[in-house]
Amino acid sequence: RSLSTAARKTLKIGLIPADGIGREVIPAAKQAIEALGSDIPRPEFIDLLAGWETFTKTGNALPHETVDVLRNECDCALFGSVSSPSKKVVGYSSPIVALRKELDLYANVRPVLSVAPEAGQQPAVDLIVVRENTECLYVKQEEQTIGENGKEARATRVITERASRRIGQMAFELALARPRKHLTIIHKSNVLSITDGLFRETVRKVPTLEGLNGKYDDVTIMEQLVDSAVYRVFDVMVAPNLYGDILSDAAAALVGSLGLVPSINAGDSFVMGEPVHGSAPDIVGKGIANPLASIRSAALMLRHLGYTKGADRLDLAVDQVIREGVTLTPDLKGTSSTTEVLNAVLKRI
Amino acid sequence: RSLSTAARKTLKIGLIPADGIGREVIPAAKQAIEALGSDIPRPEFIDLLAGWETFTKTGNALPHETVDVLRNECDCALFGSVSSPSKKVVGYSSPIVALRKELDLYANVRPVLSVAPEAGQQPAVDLIVVRENTECLYVKQEEQTIGENGKEARATRVITERASRRIGQMAFELALARPRKHLTIIHKSNVLSITDGLFRETVRKVPTLEGLNGKYDDVTIMEQLVDSAVYRVFDVMVAPNLYGDILSDAAAALVGSLGLVPSINAGDSFVMGEPVHGSAPDIVGKGIANPLASIRSAALMLRHLGYTKGADRLDLAVDQVIREGVTLTPDLKGTSSTTEVLNAVLKRI
Ligand SMILES: CC(C)[C@H](C(=O)O)[C@@H](O)C(=O)O
Ligand SMILES: CC(C)[C@H](C(=O)O)[C@@H](O)C(=O)O
Repeated sequence: RSLSTAARKTLKIGLIPADGIGREVIPAAKQAIEALGSDIPRPEFIDLLAGWETFTKTGNALPHETVDVLRNECDCALFGSVSSPSKKVVGYSSPIVALRKELDLYANVRPVLSVAPEAGQQPAVDLIVVRENTECLYVKQEEQTIGENGKEARATRVITERASRRIGQMAFELALARPRKHLTIIHKSNVLSITDGLFRETVRKVPTLEGLNGKYDDVTIMEQLVDSAVYRVFDVMVAPNLYGDILSDAAAALVGSLGLVPSINAGDSFVMGEPVHGSAPDIVGKGIANPLASIRSAALMLRHLGYTKGADRLDLAVDQVIREGVTLTPDLKGTSSTTEVLNAVLKRI
Repeated sequence: RSLSTAARKTLKIGLIPADGIGREVIPAAKQAIEALGSDIPRPEFIDLLAGWETFTKTGNALPHETVDVLRNECDCALFGSVSSPSKKVVGYSSPIVALRKELDLYANVRPVLSVAPEAGQQPAVDLIVVRENTECLYVKQEEQTIGENGKEARATRVITERASRRIGQMAFELALARPRKHLTIIHKSNVLSITDGLFRETVRKVPTLEGLNGKYDDVTIMEQLVDSAVYRVFDVMVAPNLYGDILSDAAAALVGSLGLVPSINAGDSFVMGEPVHGSAPDIVGKGIANPLASIRSAALMLRHLGYTKGADRLDLAVDQVIREGVTLTPDLKGTSSTTEVLNAVLKRI
């Protein structure tokens, strides 16, 4: 399916709340999208299963039907969050990792943005983590053997030129669109000279690719070792999968709550919004999960599809609710419920 | 060589400043040790080479002589910091990673500690990262091949039962010695179910090892996925090598400067102190590097060898200098030089 927006009368959105608070925040994002009216094609939602509970019922954390419907019927999707089993369970495998691979959603784009005290001011934190989403240790090639001294386990970390190039190009595009235009390559090539060496060199060479003709000349390229990147602030960071996973959580700490950080999983022909937070078993069912990361994820998804006006309206409403500081969930030191925060957003859309 | 302190008349300490500010802070730590007088055996220092500059001169970042002298003549050592080449250089390999392996220094212990406003009060941050120091992606088994879509690189991540057990036991010992006695196992077994699964299960099983007889019954065992661990505070954390590398830098952010965080690389028969910070090319030669992490590393090293009194004197002097807040280097928003901070410490030893 093409990402071209021109011809769409309806927008088919797969909804995969999955586990835990995913089931509380994805319905909120759905309502926020519905509130956009004619700024987007008429949304049609398709409920889809995945997750730990689905596994316990069906023996499959990611039913084939979910993948088929996403691939053949949906224009885009929203994913909630997954619970992990507390012990190794035979046959269980993370559905979000599988989905990213199945749909080749090679870029995980995670903007971390604080809200300035007044509209129009510069926010204190404004960065983007661009995480490669298909390889690194996430290829899940693991084995265990018995050696002289007991069990020995091995995992393979894969970094390819192709995946590094396409995530690199996505990162250059995002950097180019920003005022500072700084792109920082995250790696650990002082230890992983071959794998991270390939990542770093491939990303560095993106601007010289055929047909780009100096397009990225204004982007300043920098580098940072992953360990020392974790307490610093950058403009746009591009990172192999696992580093990106860790760094985006670290960056989220800068804005006070994971409950604010959205992401999209983007490929060349599909996009799936996903809040960065997890399934939060400690607060599940209490009705106090923060819906803002999911609403922002819906905005990112719409923006990626070209629906700038609808995306802006969602983002501005979320910003306003945060700025007013009255209707916030407990993770932001407020006392409001998911529904109250959602209603506050709906009123401001 | 044995770690037993009883018979020692002299303490032979290898000094490996290596690159960058390592050459400014290791001499400071040396002077602090010398100031301890009869609280420790008479120190004898042996200067040893390693690092990027050594590589450019000799073609070897870790000369055999350095390893030989450490192994055969020294009781312990202090390591500074290494610069990394900005491109892949054939034949160069990180000397600190090699040293940890050569001397089987399997535990990297990194206490992150803030200083309370008044002596005797609880510090705001007080945690320990216990990092496995010999395996994970640091085994450096990497290769590159050419596939259909260009270059493909692979690295092997190794987790063994043996290494997980001994780092686990070290972590239980450290947790047991603390008031809260909480041990958090860091892993990512929702993705790496076999390698991180082995790490997690092996550490969990440490208390049931033969001969321990309920020794660790008072330790509370917890777990945290590495991504969500990065913005949280724990008592004692035990982690595979790379996660420990990243998490200890993240924890350092909590105390305001990497220039404060010490570590030891400890094995069953050798210990090497090492500040957690890097070679800091941006401030090298300016005389403003913070010597406190190195002095604290010397204290940790002495404490590990059983010289509690000497270690306490170093730590108390460092605490006092930080608490007074007058003589601090620029990383702590002060205006003093390395020498001035060292002198302030020496005066308070
Ligand atoms: C749930 C887990 C497999 C996932 C990941 O590691 O990618 C999550 O942490 C995320 O960041 O989306
Ligand atoms: C210099 C580098 C190889 C090293 C590591 O990754 O272990 C450093 O970051 C550390 O933490 O000691």
